[in-house]
Amino acid sequence: MTVRTPDPDPADRPDPDDRPDPHDDGGRLPGVGPGWLTDLELEQVRRRLPILYVEAVPVQLDGLGRVVQVGVLLRATALGEMTRTLVSGRVLYGETLRDALFRHLEKDLGPMAFPQLPASPVPFHVAEYFPLPGVSPYTDERQHAVSLAYVVPVTGTCQPRQDALELTWMTPEDAASEATAAEMEGGRGTLVRAALASVGALP
Amino acid sequence: MTVRTPDPDPADRPDPDDRPDPHDDGGRLPGVGPGWLTDLELEQVRRRLPILYVEAVPVQLDGLGRVVQVGVLLRATALGEMTRTLVSGRVLYGETLRDALFRHLEKDLGPMAFPQLPASPVPFHVAEYFPLPGVSPYTDERQHAVSLAYVVPVTGTCQPRQDALELTWMTPEDAASEATAAEMEGGRGTLVRAALASVGALP
Amino acid sequence: MTVRTPDPDPADRPDPDDRPDPHDDGGRLPGVGPGWLTDLELEQVRRRLPILYVEAVPVQLDGLGRVVQVGVLLRATALGEMTRTLVSGRVLYGETLRDALFRHLEKDLGPMAFPQLPASPVPFHVAEYFPLPGVSPYTDERQHAVSLAYVVPVTGTCQPRQDALELTWMTPEDAASEATAAEMEGGRGTLVRAALASVGALP
Amino acid sequence: MTVRTPDPDPADRPDPDDRPDPHDDGGRLPGVGPGWLTDLELEQVRRRLPILYVEAVPVQLDGLGRVVQVGVLLRATALGEMTRTLVSGRVLYGETLRDALFRHLEKDLGPMAFPQLPASPVPFHVAEYFPLPGVSPYTDERQHAVSLAYVVPVTGTCQPRQDALELTWMTPEDAASEATAAEMEGGRGTLVRAALASVGALP
Repeated sequence: MTVRTPDPDPADRPDPDDRPDPHDDGGRLPGVGPGWLTDLELEQVRRRLPILYVEAVPVQLDGLGRVVQVGVLLRATALGEMTRTLVSGRVLYGETLRDALFRHLEKDLGPMAFPQLPASPVPFHVAEYFPLPGVSPYTDERQHAVSLAYVVPVTGTCQPRQDALELTWMTPEDAASEATAAEMEGGRGTLVRAALASVGALP
Repeated sequence: MTVRTPDPDPADRPDPDDRPDPHDDGGRLPGVGPGWLTDLELEQVRRRLPILYVEAVPVQLDGLGRVVQVGVLLRATALGEMTRTLVSGRVLYGETLRDALFRHLEKDLGPMAFPQLPASPVPFHVAEYFPLPGVSPYTDERQHAVSLAYVVPVTGTCQPRQDALELTWMTPEDAASEATAAEMEGGRGTLVRAALASVGALP
Repeated sequence: MTVRTPDPDPADRPDPDDRPDPHDDGGRLPGVGPGWLTDLELEQVRRRLPILYVEAVPVQLDGLGRVVQVGVLLRATALGEMTRTLVSGRVLYGETLRDALFRHLEKDLGPMAFPQLPASPVPFHVAEYFPLPGVSPYTDERQHAVSLAYVVPVTGTCQPRQDALELTWMTPEDAASEATAAEMEGGRGTLVRAALASVGALP
Repeated sequence: MTVRTPDPDPADRPDPDDRPDPHDDGGRLPGVGPGWLTDLELEQVRRRLPILYVEAVPVQLDGLGRVVQVGVLLRATALGEMTRTLVSGRVLYGETLRDALFRHLEKDLGPMAFPQLPASPVPFHVAEYFPLPGVSPYTDERQHAVSLAYVVPVTGTCQPRQDALELTWMTPEDAASEATAAEMEGGRGTLVRAALASVGALP
C-alpha cells in the first residue's frame, strides 16, 4: 500500500479550519443563519451535550455485492503528522441523516464518487466517542460524540475536495490489520472491523 | 384492552414540569453540575442542534423469544388529554447509550421491571423527529431529535414512577392497529410497527 | 396502478414447467448433473427437509437512498388466476447465497435490471413457510421452506423473462396496503411490510 | 407440530458418535416418523441440497447488556483430538427456527442454561459452509450447509449433556484471538468475531 503525501501547507487549503480533525462537520460556515451555531457556541455545547455524527466506510463492490476494497482517508494534522480516518461529520439542525451522510460523502470523496446511500437508515454500528479513554473503544478529546456508521458503496471516482486529504483503497485484509488500526484516529480501527464484519468480509 | 385512567390532576404530580411531553429527559434536575444544561440553555440549544434520544418499546416474550405483549405508555397531558407514547428520553453528556436506556426504562417502568438490555447497541430503527411535519413520519414541535430505538424485553413488574403515566400491555395486533397509531404522539405508531416488524411480529 | 394481463397461454412459455409457483427454483433442468435433484427426488425431499430459498423485494431508490417504488410480480397460475409474489427461488447445492440471489433476480427481472446486490449477506427478514397455516404468517402447501429475504435496489429496466410474469411498481403505501396483501401468495404481504419497515418506509 | 429432543442418556443413544462434528444435528433418531430422514438418506441428500442449520454463540451479559463472557465448546473428536466449536445443529422438517435453536441450546448447554432466545429471528450473520475451502471462510467436508447464527445470552448454569463436550467461558479478547480462531472447526473463528462485532464487543 503506497499513498501520495498530501500537501500539508495550510495556505493551499481553501479553509484552514475546515477540517481540523475527523469530527469536523463542514457546517461551521459564516452566515449560516440562526439555525446553526457559531464556533464559540459549538465549543461550549460540545462540553454539555452529546453531538450527533454520521460516519461512512466507503467500499467498492464486485458484481455480486462482495466488498473488494475499503476506502480509508489519510490526512495531515496541523502538526504535519499523518493519520487515517473515515468519512464523518456532524448532523446539522434540521438536516436528515441521509442529507448529512450525502453532504459529508461529497465533502470527503468529491462530487464524482457516486455513493449508493443505504436504503435502510439503520446503521451497522453506533460508535460512542468520549473525551476520556476507557469508556468505549472510541475517543474524541474535544467532545462526547455519538456516530451512526454506515457502509457506503461508491461507484465513481473519488477525489477528496480538501488538499490535506487522500483516499486510500485497501483490501479487507489490510483494512482490518493491526497496522492500519494503529494509524486510525480515535479508535476507528474497531469501526472498520465492525464494518467488515457487517458485510461478511472480516478475515 | 382496558386501561385505568391516570389522574390528570397536575397538582397530584410531584413535578408538574417533569414530563411535559414524551421527549422529556429526566435529566434537567437542579444542581446537576457543569456538564449539563439548564432549562433555558436546553431550550436554546434545541433550536440549534439535533438532540440525541434513546427510545424503547417494552415487550414481553414467551419461552421461545416470541413477542406476546407490547407495552405502551398512556399519559395525561397538561390539558388533561390522554395520549400514548413509548419509553424515551435524552442522552446526557458523558452518558453511554446503555446507561441512558437503562435510566429511562427505570424512570418510566419503575425499578422492578427488570429490562433485558440488548447485547447489541445497534437500534432496530432510527426515528428522526422534526418540528415541522412532512420531513419524516415523526414530529416533535419542540426540537429536532434523533432517537435510537430498541425493543427491550422486560421480565418483572412495571410500575411507572410518575403518577401521570400508565403502562398498557397490548397484543401485537392491537399495538399495530390504526386505532392505536392514531393515539400515539409524534407519529410513534410507525415506530411501534417497525419494532414489531424487526422481531417478526408485525401482523 | 395498472397492470397488463400477462399471457397465460402455456405454448408461449419457453418451459411450461419452469415456474409453476413462486417457490420454483429454475434449477430443475434435465441433465444438471449429479449435484442436483430430479423433479421426483425434489418432491420427496420437500417432505423431509426444510428447503432453503432466497427472496428479493426489488425497489427503486431516489438519489438519497429512499425507497420510492416497490416491485411486485404479477403472474397467472395454471388455472388462469392472477396472484402477486416476489422474486424468489431455491438455493442450489454448491451455490452461494449471492449467486442464488443474482440468478433469481435475473430470471424474474431480466438481464437489464442491474440489481445492486447487498453488501451484507444478512437478510432483513427470515420467512418460514410451512405447509399448514398457523405456524407462521407464511404458507407453502408444497413444502417447508426457509427464505432469506433481501431488499434489492434495481437501477435498470426490468423485463421478466417468463411470459406469465409481469412486474408492477407500486408506491410504498400501495405495497403495504391491505388490498395488495390480500393478493399476495403465501402471506408475502407481511414480508413486503417487513421490507418497508427495514428501510424506514413503512407508512 | 411436535419435536422430540434427543435422549440425554448416552446409553439410550442409537449412535454413540452422535456428534461426529459440529454440524451434527441430534435429530437422526430411529422412529422419528416419515417427516425425517434416515442416516443413509441424509448422507445422500447432503450432496444434493444445501442443509439448513442454526448456530448460537452463547454469551454472558452484565447488568447493562454488555457481553462479558463468550461460551465456546471444546470437544474430543473420534481421533481424540480436541477442537473448539459453537452450539449448532440442523433444522428439522416442520420445525421453526426458534424451536431448533432452543433444542440445540438445550442439547449442548443442558437444561439449566436458561438461554434468552432472541426476539428477532434475523441472524447476526449467515455462515455458508462448503465442502471445499476457498468459496467462503467456512468449510464442512460433509456437506453444503447454510447456518443462521445468533448471539444468545444465557442466565443459568451450562452443563453439556454429551460427555465429549466441555463449555469454556472466555473474555471477548480471548474469544477473538488468533489462538482461539486456530482451534475452531470449519472457520468458526470468523463467526465468533462477527458475533462480537454485532454486539459492539470486538476488540
